[in-house]
Formats: sequence, structure tokens, C-alpha cells
Amino acid sequence: MGPVRLALLAVVALAAAGEAVYIPYNTSAGVVAGKLNVHVVPHTHDDVGWLKTVDQYYVGSNNSIQGACVQNVLDSLIPALLKDENRKFIYVEQAFFQRWWRNQNDMIKDTVKGLISSGRLELINGGMCMHDEATVHYIDMIDQTTLGHKFIKEEFGQIPRIGWQIDPFGHSAVQAYLLGAEVGFDAFYFFRIDYQDRDTRKETKELEVVWRGSKSFGSSADIFAGIFPKNYEPPPGDFYFEVDDDSPVVQDDPLLFDYNVEERVNDFVAAALAQANITRTNHIMFTMGTDFKYQYAESWFRNMDKLIHYVNKDGRINALYSTPSIYTDAKYAANEQWPLKTNDFFPYADNPNAYWTGYFTSRPALKRYVRMMSGYYLAARQLEFFKGKSKSGPTTDYLGDALALAQHHDAVTGTEKQHVANDYAKRLSIGYTRAQELVSTSLACLTELGSKSHCSSPTTKFSQTDFSKGKSLVVLVYNSLGWKREDVLRVPVFSDSIVVHDSEGREVESQLLPIASASLNIRDKHVKAYLGTSPGAKPKFWLAFPVSVPPLGFNTYFVSSMKKSASVSSKSTIYSSQGSENSNLQVGQGNLKLQYNAAGAFSLYSDSRTLIEANFEQKYKYYIGQDGNGSDPQASGAYIFRPNGTVPIKTDSQVPLTVLRGPIVDEVHQQINSWIYQITRVYKGKDYVETEFIVGPVPTDDGNGKEVAAEIVSNMATNKTFYTDSSGRDFIKRIRDYRSEWKIEVHQPIAGNYYPVNLGIYVEDGNKELSVLVDRSIGGSSIKDGQIELMLHRRLLHDDGRGVAEALNETVCLDNQCEGLIIEGKYYLKIDPQGEGSRWRRTFGQEIYSPLLLAFSEQDGGNWANSHIPKFSAMDPTYSLPDSVALLTLQELEDGSVLLRFAHLYEAGEHKDLSALASVDLKRVFPNKKIGKIIETSLSANQERAAMEKKRLKWKVQGPPADGKVVRGGPMDPSKLVIELGPMEIRTFIVNFERSISGKQLL
Amino acid sequence: MGPVRLALLAVVALAAAGEAVYIPYNTSAGVVAGKLNVHVVPHTHDDVGWLKTVDQYYVGSNNSIQGACVQNVLDSLIPALLKDENRKFIYVEQAFFQRWWRNQNDMIKDTVKGLISSGRLELINGGMCMHDEATVHYIDMIDQTTLGHKFIKEEFGQIPRIGWQIDPFGHSAVQAYLLGAEVGFDAFYFFRIDYQDRDTRKETKELEVVWRGSKSFGSSADIFAGIFPKNYEPPPGDFYFEVDDDSPVVQDDPLLFDYNVEERVNDFVAAALAQANITRTNHIMFTMGTDFKYQYAESWFRNMDKLIHYVNKDGRINALYSTPSIYTDAKYAANEQWPLKTNDFFPYADNPNAYWTGYFTSRPALKRYVRMMSGYYLAARQLEFFKGKSKSGPTTDYLGDALALAQHHDAVTGTEKQHVANDYAKRLSIGYTRAQELVSTSLACLTELGSKSHCSSPTTKFSQTDFSKGKSLVVLVYNSLGWKREDVLRVPVFSDSIVVHDSEGREVESQLLPIASASLNIRDKHVKAYLGTSPGAKPKFWLAFPVSVPPLGFNTYFVSSMKKSASVSSKSTIYSSQGSENSNLQVGQGNLKLQYNAAGAFSLYSDSRTLIEANFEQKYKYYIGQDGNGSDPQASGAYIFRPNGTVPIKTDSQVPLTVLRGPIVDEVHQQINSWIYQITRVYKGKDYVETEFIVGPVPTDDGNGKEVAAEIVSNMATNKTFYTDSSGRDFIKRIRDYRSEWKIEVHQPIAGNYYPVNLGIYVEDGNKELSVLVDRSIGGSSIKDGQIELMLHRRLLHDDGRGVAEALNETVCLDNQCEGLIIEGKYYLKIDPQGEGSRWRRTFGQEIYSPLLLAFSEQDGGNWANSHIPKFSAMDPTYSLPDSVALLTLQELEDGSVLLRFAHLYEAGEHKDLSALASVDLKRVFPNKKIGKIIETSLSANQERAAMEKKRLKWKVQGPPADGKVVRGGPMDPSKLVIELGPMEIRTFIVNFERSISGKQLL
Repeated sequence: MGPVRLALLAVVALAAAGEAVYIPYNTSAGVVAGKLNVHVVPHTHDDVGWLKTVDQYYVGSNNSIQGACVQNVLDSLIPALLKDENRKFIYVEQAFFQRWWRNQNDMIKDTVKGLISSGRLELINGGMCMHDEATVHYIDMIDQTTLGHKFIKEEFGQIPRIGWQIDPFGHSAVQAYLLGAEVGFDAFYFFRIDYQDRDTRKETKELEVVWRGSKSFGSSADIFAGIFPKNYEPPPGDFYFEVDDDSPVVQDDPLLFDYNVEERVNDFVAAALAQANITRTNHIMFTMGTDFKYQYAESWFRNMDKLIHYVNKDGRINALYSTPSIYTDAKYAANEQWPLKTNDFFPYADNPNAYWTGYFTSRPALKRYVRMMSGYYLAARQLEFFKGKSKSGPTTDYLGDALALAQHHDAVTGTEKQHVANDYAKRLSIGYTRAQELVSTSLACLTELGSKSHCSSPTTKFSQTDFSKGKSLVVLVYNSLGWKREDVLRVPVFSDSIVVHDSEGREVESQLLPIASASLNIRDKHVKAYLGTSPGAKPKFWLAFPVSVPPLGFNTYFVSSMKKSASVSSKSTIYSSQGSENSNLQVGQGNLKLQYNAAGAFSLYSDSRTLIEANFEQKYKYYIGQDGNGSDPQASGAYIFRPNGTVPIKTDSQVPLTVLRGPIVDEVHQQINSWIYQITRVYKGKDYVETEFIVGPVPTDDGNGKEVAAEIVSNMATNKTFYTDSSGRDFIKRIRDYRSEWKIEVHQPIAGNYYPVNLGIYVEDGNKELSVLVDRSIGGSSIKDGQIELMLHRRLLHDDGRGVAEALNETVCLDNQCEGLIIEGKYYLKIDPQGEGSRWRRTFGQEIYSPLLLAFSEQDGGNWANSHIPKFSAMDPTYSLPDSVALLTLQELEDGSVLLRFAHLYEAGEHKDLSALASVDLKRVFPNKKIGKIIETSLSANQERAAMEKKRLKWKVQGPPADGKVVRGGPMDPSKLVIELGPMEIRTFIVNFERSISGKQLL
Repeated sequence: MGPVRLALLAVVALAAAGEAVYIPYNTSAGVVAGKLNVHVVPHTHDDVGWLKTVDQYYVGSNNSIQGACVQNVLDSLIPALLKDENRKFIYVEQAFFQRWWRNQNDMIKDTVKGLISSGRLELINGGMCMHDEATVHYIDMIDQTTLGHKFIKEEFGQIPRIGWQIDPFGHSAVQAYLLGAEVGFDAFYFFRIDYQDRDTRKETKELEVVWRGSKSFGSSADIFAGIFPKNYEPPPGDFYFEVDDDSPVVQDDPLLFDYNVEERVNDFVAAALAQANITRTNHIMFTMGTDFKYQYAESWFRNMDKLIHYVNKDGRINALYSTPSIYTDAKYAANEQWPLKTNDFFPYADNPNAYWTGYFTSRPALKRYVRMMSGYYLAARQLEFFKGKSKSGPTTDYLGDALALAQHHDAVTGTEKQHVANDYAKRLSIGYTRAQELVSTSLACLTELGSKSHCSSPTTKFSQTDFSKGKSLVVLVYNSLGWKREDVLRVPVFSDSIVVHDSEGREVESQLLPIASASLNIRDKHVKAYLGTSPGAKPKFWLAFPVSVPPLGFNTYFVSSMKKSASVSSKSTIYSSQGSENSNLQVGQGNLKLQYNAAGAFSLYSDSRTLIEANFEQKYKYYIGQDGNGSDPQASGAYIFRPNGTVPIKTDSQVPLTVLRGPIVDEVHQQINSWIYQITRVYKGKDYVETEFIVGPVPTDDGNGKEVAAEIVSNMATNKTFYTDSSGRDFIKRIRDYRSEWKIEVHQPIAGNYYPVNLGIYVEDGNKELSVLVDRSIGGSSIKDGQIELMLHRRLLHDDGRGVAEALNETVCLDNQCEGLIIEGKYYLKIDPQGEGSRWRRTFGQEIYSPLLLAFSEQDGGNWANSHIPKFSAMDPTYSLPDSVALLTLQELEDGSVLLRFAHLYEAGEHKDLSALASVDLKRVFPNKKIGKIIETSLSANQERAAMEKKRLKWKVQGPPADGKVVRGGPMDPSKLVIELGPMEIRTFIVNFERSISGKQLL
């Protein structure tokens, strides 16, 4: 045979073909002293809604958007874990885990229970979702975590030890100390911190720290915080092993080509050494997974088995299957002192021009909806408790579940796709509808005289009471707060001849205010767009009247028509003011008065009680959203706020102000421009300013996305400093263009100074405090001294490249015509003498969170009071919670026990009186019930508090010991049943009431 | 609370949340009489190399090219099958299955054995790969199928029942009758047939037929053939359930949104009814899978479980987990008469301008390499048998495995990516190297006198014998055919003074021919490019001398230098001829003479023995490959031949012919153009023309891809008719622009008339036959009457859009300079009197397939014959196989038994004498061995022939009964050991030889 002239490649030596090459991998390594230990932590990150809805992610539908199916992850995980007892996995998002669990048969359930109890499958973090930390309220964080932890405890007897907030876009102090330490977590892991901060920390090996998130709690709420060096994915060097991933698999079959064990071991060791180089102790963590991975778990484990086997055979380092718990214990065992971190990790930037501060405001309507539902859920659970929880429903459960999902870091954040935002809203709507039924039923029971066993809903379905037929409207007003509440109600009416009576038959002063056509137009449009029905007759007036409601109770008011009676509701006087006339304009019937300037922005605020006088203006502006075209592709979008110029919105001074005056409230209506309408209110009995804004449709016909902000501009010398709350709880000092723990290079002087505002924002100048409180989560800042701004609405035309792949361009469509979404909302403003602002911020802030809950009925004639209980408080009538204490949770659980949670509302030193230790007398809170058993628990109610404190790891901190005394309530004496609360303390209890003689738990 | 103005969607009714919704699916349905039965057949189609190499596909590496990992498929399959005993799966490609199997531990192996024995996992088709049917030789098809079936039989005791050639690009008659019926298959499924044929068959419900592929065997080799209506994927309507597929999953959890059971059931029923509409009987098959699917098998089964459950609950149709076996049995049980199909399904077109006839030639070097190795493997196994198979190696096993892979329908077809083609070549190279060692060792044993237990290789490593030192070259010539063979050898030599002796010391006439520089240049270039070494001194001559070798045996020749002896080798006379001189040019020293015309294309062929005289020309042309730009994007590519114009290649009449003349052979050398060189040979003792061509580098600097064809143009009146072989075996009549069983609309008058040529192509005019035989698989046609053309080489610049995503542009690179691959090859031409051509085509065709095998040694002086056996035949020296019979297989198996396969080479009626029943006398084939036990088996040797025939389903055919008597050999009488073979019959035996007295199985 002549010379072979064909394409031949070099002949390689191979093992004899045909032989079996079954290789048992040794994956049994534990921690090895004296070696670098690589904790291989297999995990998946499953967003509870983002590009697809939670259900779509679970079942794996809508894969054209994103190939992701959580059912695959969990289904495939079980055989993979069974294959090798050393394999481990963590699972995080309980919303998914619960969906999966209820689809399983008993055999699988038993198997999984075994895997969990042996630690091979560990449920960590454990809330229903991995909640956001900027745009969520702490009460929602607690509720959704409690819901998840409860399931884990009940079903598996497990208590999550680890906080695993690996994806949220910045991290809050409240998360660290409250949802971390106070939940009993030993550590808390995440990765999204400012890129400059990260770079510094890598250099100084300070990615792992002890985080002291609470000034009030000091070291008692320290937690170990681990920041990942890059992200929550496998280390650099191609270690992705999902089906279809293109990392090189470990090819160790000598009978096949491309054997690469040596290269892969070298890659792994190199990655480990690089990470060890920026990490203290000889333990590092490899987070082996990412979004929705482990669709076929075996594909990962197969390769990790091999890596562990061959790396340990190589011997340079030690690799082990691990979990964050094992890693944390190893860190703790190293007995190191760790750098201290205080405050929080906001704002987050991943690039010089990429501050993730847009999402503080993105989807403001959804944010408001979530906040409304949160307060409603709190109240509804109280009413569910009063009535007794019914298995046959209606219950508050669906609302609780919907709210839990809405806390996800791509839900309330506004960073999900539009159809997913719709899904969250739909769930809230369903939950609200069910909770409303429960509320109606409960109120019916509470109001009904005689037998309460068959109480029926007071609200027969009606949408409008026809006063002309002698009927009157019964308004039941429920107060979920623990203190008596005076407030002004507003009810839409048709008639201009209205009279209001209280539950004792006394006439109540009231005022009629014509409903602004701006408001009516929105109502009409949205009823048509979302309900598909015609909105019917338009009410003409808001009827405003003051109400007084006892704590944890209700009062009843009666609205009827009365021709020309002396005591008829006052019609507001109406006055139009324009241009220079405005400078004579003053509103306010009580202590607080506002004086307008010629431009129509009010300029003088004066409070005759506190003697505060201050000048400021109320203005609007918008930022042009960077479009991301050109050489720098970073657009402003759902996540990222990147302004490309500021445009002041000038009020047309030709457009008159409209002023409504009356005995209850003065209102100033201003059409700021064609798409901003503003109503400023001063109530006679209240010492703050309420501003209602209607913003939108934001025009984009100039091709620019716009981000609309309200400004309050004063001449206060605030020295670059302002304060924003952390998840609605602690206020944190912010200094413009400055970070307290690291040196910032400023690239984005506006976006980089934005912070999340859940409760409020304030500035002070040594003499006074200017506070603004909000009705939802919002982005805010003080961009100039004396100034506060709130980002009210964002309408953008470009995606910002962080995955959602949609422009944040919310629209409302009617007859195939779409226009930008209109946002309606309120903010509240008050100026207090220095040192006094906290009282309003805290107490009134709680009232904003928990508005009065209304129910309506009709009566023919005046017989209601004869057949109903018109006024009620669940508490001892002479008792009220201290001003500093809120009842966060009063909820009957499935087993009849009751979850009870009180919160001290003030930080240590925040207020000279109200920051003191406070007490709650449970016997007076529940005067008609006998507490059989009461156990104090962790914040998420999944373990006894005492056991938690004993168990929780105490971490050592570098530097001098923490100074300052921490005030916490002492142990509760079961005979006294008095709960003490130190500043910022939240105490959680499981209470078992003894059954009353009647055998019912009703009051 | 005022009217909710937020985005609310309609509230939908949901089952009570929180309840368990574990649903046990009823998947137990079998066939239901009176209903439409949908056979749900889960399958994966795993190419044994295509875009990635077979090993890359297996381990899942190189996923950036294609996300595919067969290990995932098989790993995930096992738990999925265990989950529900009704789930079924078929697996096809044994190359993958064997790779996986040898990685498994005993527990998994036991589990899998259970699944296979219970029919839940069925291994069908069962070859190492799903071989191609156009470019493969039937011997390779048999070998690769035998290899796969052997494993299945030995490991699992199973015999595959079903042919499953779902992807090859057209289907051969040999596949149907030989690799189908003769293997014992009951049915054969596929989908790629001409789109016009398919459309017709859909209308007439003739997608399922009985295929009678063999004229010789008639109905005795009928097989049920099922053509899929569209492809081998799930039916239309989105039923793809791979991880990440975007078909709607069946969402049946009432607690989640998007419940869609009803829609999905309707989709399924609609798909079933549509398919039922074009299918006979109430059974249809849904092929649930496609390329490399079931990476996570559960994802498919989960959805199929639900579909079967809910579809059967719906009740309109019956869905069942099935396999092609169950489906076939159901079809058979229907007791229908089926339409008859004869001939084959070539060529395949999936669109008017998309004839898959390019791949008949694509990668001609690889095709030649495969064919060379195929013949070598046949011979090497004989030598392995003579020596005795050794477990410690070397063996022919690797070559067998490499050849098996190379038969894959993206291997020898040339439709794989370049790096994958390299992988096949590498495997062949390794296999060849090992087989060479075995061959050397075996020949050493056979030649050695005395003890054969430690025989050493005769070929000590030498590349060149230095005659000047008195050494001579020993040439051992092995003949693997069953008959004595006279041939001319060619050995490169340096000296011009050479003498050749035979094994009895007689001088043999020989001739020296200067080696053409075209050949030397290729040698130099390829040695450098592929071996990376300098090629060393250049031999000057080919030494040609006739040899005579006994059947299944060898002879020895001695080449030495002898100064100026009378008997020295004749140097060829050299003569240059140009222009009109050519017309006087005549070559041929024997019966056959060729007379050239002025253009240098020879014009007169005359054979003084047969008295044939015929005029014809030998020409070259190229087709311009359609580039696929413009409105019609179909390019010519690896699969598809789509010419865009024909360019004749004119021989420059200024370039002289070179004529070499001598006692053995005359050669005419022609530089056709700058990149085509042709040598035409006429051997004194042979009555055919041998044409060697060197084509390339095909220039593409004009931006055109080119497809180069050789033409033989005669004036024969061939009436549009020509004949091409089916996989190297039966000749099938082809008529230009015509299909025998359906009406074709001609869109591609060239590409649509191309057919695969493995053995040869011929035309006839009633007086004579013009036959051309080839040295590899190639595309050929008769585009004009009297003409034959062979596509020799293809170099194209565009991908043709069938998945490979590479242009077929083979290059050779040296010092970073790449140029087009040069193809060297031969074709053979003969003109016979009408009715006589088959003898040459069959007998010489077999010699082309099985060239003489050479081994070299050196001797000092003339002592070789004293110490060695110089001449040998394994058979009785007086015996020879009949001219009509070839020994296809003589192979010792691992257990010491021997696989023996004889083939009758003639079709019924093909030759007046040689088509008769033939006999092989085994006692004379193995004169020195005693046959202990001999069992006739199916073609793939996995079952007894008698049992197979009894078991195999007999299908009814529409129309009159088949006429004509089928001649097959009768049962073999074990005492006589004479095997009879009817026309085209291949008979396979497992033989156990009794041990010889010496205890060795050697001769």
C-alpha cells in the first residue's frame, strides 16, 4: 500500500478500548485544617417572578422569554442528592418550594424530609421570596419571612440559619439586624454592593465583616456578613455545568478523546487561590449556580463530583461539598476578629454610570398598591382574629401570599416585565377581594347584637345609597392602631345637602368639596380600561368629616340627606387666584398656615403652636432619561437612574390657583402643567401639609424618557446632610457625595445621591427639621442644601441592560389607544423645632401605613343603632398602647394560637421622651380573654427567643468594644403579662388563649 | 376607602389555596380497539458525530457549538423510566449507549437490564450508528450493524426488531431488504423522501408501505416501511418538552394561573386527527423527540404523562406510551394489505431546488479513506483469525469501531464539521495503526518456519532498503479474496537497475515508470502538513511487476538491484505528443488499445478479444456552486448539490501528452489544466482502462465554489437510462427526469438526476455496456444519452442551510498558508458486449474493494526462502471460491467462535452463468480445521436464521402476488458443510472449530 496521502492526525495513546471505566468519586471531604478549604455550595437562584410570572417559572411555561422551570430544578434535585450522600444543596425561595411540595406524593415527601433532616438539602433564607431591601417595608419583610419560616418549621422542623440575599440591589440595615440577627440568622450573604466599595474591600480583605445594622441594638444584633467577590455564580474559569452550558466538562474517561482532568483541576485551583488571596481565613466559598440553574441537577453534580475528587487527589487544596451553614461554622471556628460595618449598602452601583437608584421609584402604582395592601392585611388579620379564623374561608391567606410574592426583589422594585407586574397586581387584587369578604363578615359579627354565630356581611352589594328614598349611608370606621385616632374621612357624594351623625346621634360638622375633574377623569378612564365597564354617574363632592375611633376598634357614622337644615354640610368656598393675587393667598384654618407667593409655590409655612416660620417652595422638575445610544450604552431604565439633564417644570402663572375653603380643610388646586395636577391640603385639626399629586401621562413625544420629581426647596443650611429611613424603620444619615466607610469618586452627582424612602426623608439645620413622609416606597434625595426631592414617576423609552429587556414605559390602553400611566399619590410635609420631628414622623408615619378601614352599609330610617353595636374597642376602654408602640401583628394561626408582635417605633435617643422603654399590658389589650400560654419567639416566630439567643453565634469585631448601653425589654413575667420594649425593639409572641366559657373565642 | 384606581385585572376563580394537588396520572393505556390509537414514542436522535465529535456529544463538551450531552440523556432517562412503569423509551445509537454503559456501576446496570428486559427501554436499529444509506458500502453497513447487535445480544439478550433510519438523506434498497429484512427486522421507519413523493403519498395514504427492495429476493425480503408524515419530531402543535423548549407545558395545577389542560388536549387531538387523515388503520405514531433531546428526560415524560392522562380522560382518542415495536405489531394486527414499494428513495429533495445529492461526493478524501480501511479491515480480520485473536492486542477492534462510527450519516457523507471529519480520520488512523501491527504479527506467524508461538513481525521498522549493501526488499502480498488473483504491483524505488524474483527464485518481468512530479509534490506537501516531518529523499520510479497470489493466502516477491543484468527491469519509453501528433497516438500492449484524438481525449476503444470498438471522449467540467445569495437562498453545500451553470474544462492542446510505454503497462499523462492531472493506464494483461486523477487545489479566487466532474462521453443511444448500484450491491435502473413510482416535476435537471455510486455506474445501448467502477463512494449520473459523469471533488464557499453551518471548503495548511485539498483517485472503465458487463463489474469490483495487502521486509542475501514460508493459501490448494462468491467476513470473536459470511455477487438474471446458485465447500475452505459446530444466523449474527424466519412478520401487499421464483440456497447439511448461495444471497454463520491436536487454532 503506497504512502497514505489522506488527512491523518497524530495518533494518540489511549487506554485499551472496551474496558469498563466506572469511577467511584470520593466526595466525602470535610474541612481540612491547614489547607485552603473550598466550600463548594451548589445552589439555584429562582426569582419569584421577573421575566415570567412565578407560576410560569414554576411550571416552565413561556420559555420563549426565558428557559426556566423550577419544577425541573426540584424534580431533578432529588435523584441527584440520593446518588451520593455527600452532595448537598440549598434551596431558598419558599414560594417555589411550597408549589412543588404540594405536588409531591408521600414517597417523595418522605425522601425529601430525610434529605432535609440530614442536612443534604438545606432550606436557607426561608422567606416566600428573596425580598428586596430598598423598596419594601419592614412589616412586609417580617410577614413574608414569617410565612416561609412557618412552613419550614411545621413541615420539616427546621429553622433557617442563614440569610441569603444574594441578588437584591443593595442591602439595608434593617435586613442585617432585623431580618438577620433578630430572625436568629448566624450569617448573611450577598454580593451587590457599590463597585468602588467592593474594590476597596478586596484590597483590604474586608468582603467579610460583622455588620452592626442597628444603632439602637448595638452589638446585640451583630451578624456575620459575607460579600461575594464577584457575583453569586461559579468562580471565574468556566465552571458552569447547566445542560447546554459551554464550560468544559470534566472529561475523565480515558477511553474518550479530550481527557482534560489536569487542566480542569488547575483551573479550579487557580480560581481558589485567587479568591483566597482576598479572603480571610483558609475558607472560601464557591457559589455553584445562578439564576434558574440545576434544571437538570445531575449535570452540575456530575462535574462537581469529579472536581472534588480530582482536586483532592491533586492535594494542593481541599474541596468539599458544603452549605453556607457549614461555611459559616468554619468561619466562626477560625475565631477571627472581623472588620465592623455599620449603616447600610445603599445606593448600589455596578459601574461609574450605573446607579441602581431608579428602581426606588419604578412602577409607583404597583408600589402604592403593595403598600395599601400591606396596611389592609394588618387590619384584616386583626378582624380575622376577632371573628375566629375559618377554614372554609374567606381568609386573609391569599392576600398574605400575594403580598409575600410582591416583596420579591423583582416585584415591588418595578424591575419585572409588564406582564409580570400585572400578575402581582392580579394576585393582590384576588387577595384583597377575599380579605374584603373576611373583613365584611368580621365586622358584621362585631356589630351584630345577640347571636354572633351566623353574622352576615353588613355590606349587601350596593354602589350608591339613594338618600332621596330616606335611606342613609352607614360608615363603619375601623382603626387598626393601638391608640385612639382622630382623622378626617372623605366619602364621595352626589347631593349638596348632606348631614353626618355620629354613633350617638350627634351631628358632626362636615364639608363638601367639589371633586376635581382631574380626579374624575382618572376614575372614568381606569374603570373603563381595567373593568371594561362604564363608570356610571359621577359623584360631585367629596364629603369630609372628622371621625374619632377607639384603638383596635371601630366607630359608626351615618350620612344622610337633609334639605336646608342648619346643620347641613358646609359647601366649600371657591376662589380663583392668579399671578400677583397669589401673594395674598393664605390657607389654613388652624395652627398651620401657608402663605403663597406670586408664582403659586407656597413660600411661608407658619405654625402658631410651635412658632415655626419657614420659607420654602414646592416645585416639579424632570430628569431626561439617558437613552443609552452613542458610545456609552448605559440607559436610564427600570433599575438604573441615569439622568441626562434636568428640566424645571415652570408653572404657567396664567393658570389660576383654585382654593377651596371650609371648616374642615382648605385645599389649593394647581394645574402645574398639562400633565401635573397638585392639591395641597391643610386640615384644621392637623399640623402638617398634605400634598396630593396627579402626574401623567408623562409625554414622550419629544423622544425623551422622563423621570419626574417633586422638590421642596427651603433656605435651611443642611450641610449636605439628610436622613432617610431603612426599610421604613431606622433613619440613616446620608451625606451628599460621601460614604461614611469608604472614599467615593463621584460620577453621578444626582443618581449617586438617591436613597430609598419608605417612611420619610428629612433635613435639619440645628433649629428645625423639615420632614416629608411618603405613601409608598419612593426614591428621594437632598440634591442641594435645604432641598428635598422625591422621584414620583418614571417613564422611560429604553432598557437599561440589566436583564428585564423592556423599557419602563407603563401605559393604560383604551380602545387600542395607549397613553402613559397616571400616578396619583400623596406626600406629607411638616416642619418641627429641632429634636421634635421624630414624633410626627413616627406616630403619623404609622397612621399613613395603617389608614382607617371603612365599611359601608345602608339603613332605612334611623334604626341601625338599635340593632347594632355602633362603637367598639377590643382593648380595655381606658387603655391605649403607648405612643411609641405599634401592634404589628395580631393574627390567628391555623392551630388556633395567635401571633402577636409589638414594635417600639423610636430609635435610641431619637426623641427625648418617646425613646424610653415602653410597656404593653397584655391583660388590658385583651381584657376579655385569658392568656393560657405565651411564648416569646424569634422575629419570624419559628423558635423560642431564649433558645435563639443562646444558639446564635457571637462574632468578634476588630477594634475597641462597642460603647453605649443597649436598652431592651426584660423577660416577660407570665403572671403580669406586661411586655417591655426598648427603642426599636420588636417582640414576637405565640399566644394561646384559653377558651371562653361560651366555647367561642369571640370577645 | 375610595375607588381603587390602580391596575387591577379580573379576578379569576381558583381552587382553595394551600391544598395539596398531587395528581397520579393514569398512563396505563394500551391499544384500544375502535378508537384512534396514538402511539406516543419517546425517542432521542443522537448523531454519532456531526457538529461535535462523538465523544464531545457524549460528555457534553464543546457546547458552544451545540448544547448536547448524551450522557445527560441516558443518565436522566433511568430515574424517569423508574418513576412510572408505563413510560417507555427507545435508544438507537450503540456507540453512545456503549460509552455510557461502561461508565455505569453494577447497580445501574442491573436496573437498566430490568428496564430492557421488560420492554420499557428498547434498543432498536441497534448498529453502532445510524448509518448513511447512500455513501456507505453494504459490507460496512453489515459490519457496523453486527457490532452493535452483538453487544445488545451479549449484554441484554435482546434482538432489535425495528429499523429506525429516521435521519439519513434518502434510503437505499439494500437498507430495506438486506439491513432490514435479512437482519430480521419487522419494520423500518424513516422520513426523508422526496417532497413530491411525500405529497403524493399523503394524498393516497401511501406513507406506510411494504418495501420490496430486492429483485432477486422478491417478497421473501419484504419489509414494512413507515415514512413519517413530516419529520421525526413531535407532531405540529407545539409538543416539544425539552428543558428550555417553548412549547406550552401542560399546566394542570388548579392552584396556579394559566391552567391549560383543555387547550393542550385539543391541540393533541387535532394533531392526531390530522395525522389519522393521511394514515391507514387506526394507529398513528407520534415521534416524541428530536436531535439530542431528553437531556433531562423527566421534562418530556412529565408532560407526556399528563397528555396521555387527560387525552384519555377526554375520550375522543386513545393515547398510549408505545414503541415502534408495539406500533408495528398493532399495524400488523390490523391485517391490512399495504401498497408495494420497490427500488429505493434516491435522490432526496426537501425543496424544488434542494436535492441532497451533493453529499454523494462531499469530502472525497474521507470517503476514500473509509473505503480503503473497509477493505483492509476485511483482510486484517482474516489474518487475525489465522493468528488467533489475542486479548492483549494488537487487534482489529479499534479499526472496526472507527469504521463503524465512520458509517454514520454525518460521517462518510461529508456533512459534518471539519473538526469532526478530522476526528473520524484520527480514529481510522489509530485503528489502522493497530490493525497494521496485528497484520504484521500475523504474517510473521504465517511465514515463520518452526515454532509459531513467538512469531515476530516481519517488518522491522525501515522506510527504505539500501540495495547497494546487497540487501533486497521482501514483498509479501496477501490476497483476501477467495479466488486466485493476478495483479500488477507498484513499489516506489530509487534505483533504475532493479530485478524482481518470485518465491521460487524465478525472475519476474518488471517495468520502471518515472514518478510523476504531480504525485511527488502531493506526497511532499502532505507529509509536511500532516506528519510535520520532512519527507526525505524522493523515489524516482514506480516499479511495476505482475504478481500471482493464491486465494486467502500470500506469495512473496524479492526486489533487488542488479547492475546491467539482462533481466533488469525495463525502463519505460517516454514520448511526448502534442496537438495533431496525438491523433496517431495509440496505447495498449494487449487486447485493449486506446487511440487518441487530436484533442488528447481518447476516442477509440478497441478490444481484440471481444471485438468491441467504440468511440468516446474523456473530459472534465465543473459546476458553479450556487452561492445562495439573492432572493433564493439555497446554496450548494455539503448536503445539497445546486449547480449554477456548467463550465467545460478545456485541455490546453499546447501542453503535450506524456506517454510511458513498457512491457507491463502503458501510461498516458495529461495535465488537463493547472489543477487537474490525469494518468490513463492500460495494462498488458488487463482488459480495462484505469484512470487516475489528481484534482485540486480547486481555485476559488473567482468567488465561485466549484464541483468538479469527470465525463465519459460516448455516442451510445442509451435512452435516458443508466444503472447505479445500491450501497455497492444491487444495480438499480435510473431514468433521467423520471421516477418509476411517481410523477416528478423537474426543477433541477442535473442535481435531480444524480445518484450515489459505490461500486459503479453503467449505460447500455443493446449492443454494448459502458461500465465505470469507482474507488470510493461518489455521486454520478448520465446527464446526456451515452454519457456518464462522476462528481470527483467539491469545493464550496457557502453553507447550504441544513445545519452543519460550515462551507464545504476543505483545505490543507502549511506554514499558515492554506489551499484547497487535492483529491487523488481512480476510476476504471470497460466496454463489454451487451450482457457481459456484469462479470467485470462484479468480480473486478470486488478486487477494487479488496486490494492486495502488502507487507515488506528486508533480507541480506538470498536466505529468506530457507527460513520462511514464501507462499501460502488457507484453503485447499486445489480449491477456489466460485467467481460469483465473495468471502465477506472471516473473523474470530472474543469467545473463540468464528463469524463467517459469504456473499453471492450477482443478481438474479444479471449474468447468464454467474447468476446461478453457487456452492462453497467449507471443508475445502478450511482444509486443516475441523468444524465442530456451525449455526446459520441472521445477517447481523444475533439470532439463528431459522428462528428469525419463523418469527419475522409477513406483510400483505396490495395487488397480484409476486411472480418469479426466488432462488436461495438450501439448508446446509452439517455433514457435508456445503453452503449454497442463490443470487445476491449473503449467508452468515457462527462456526466453532475443534481444537487441533497441537492445542492451537493455527493452521
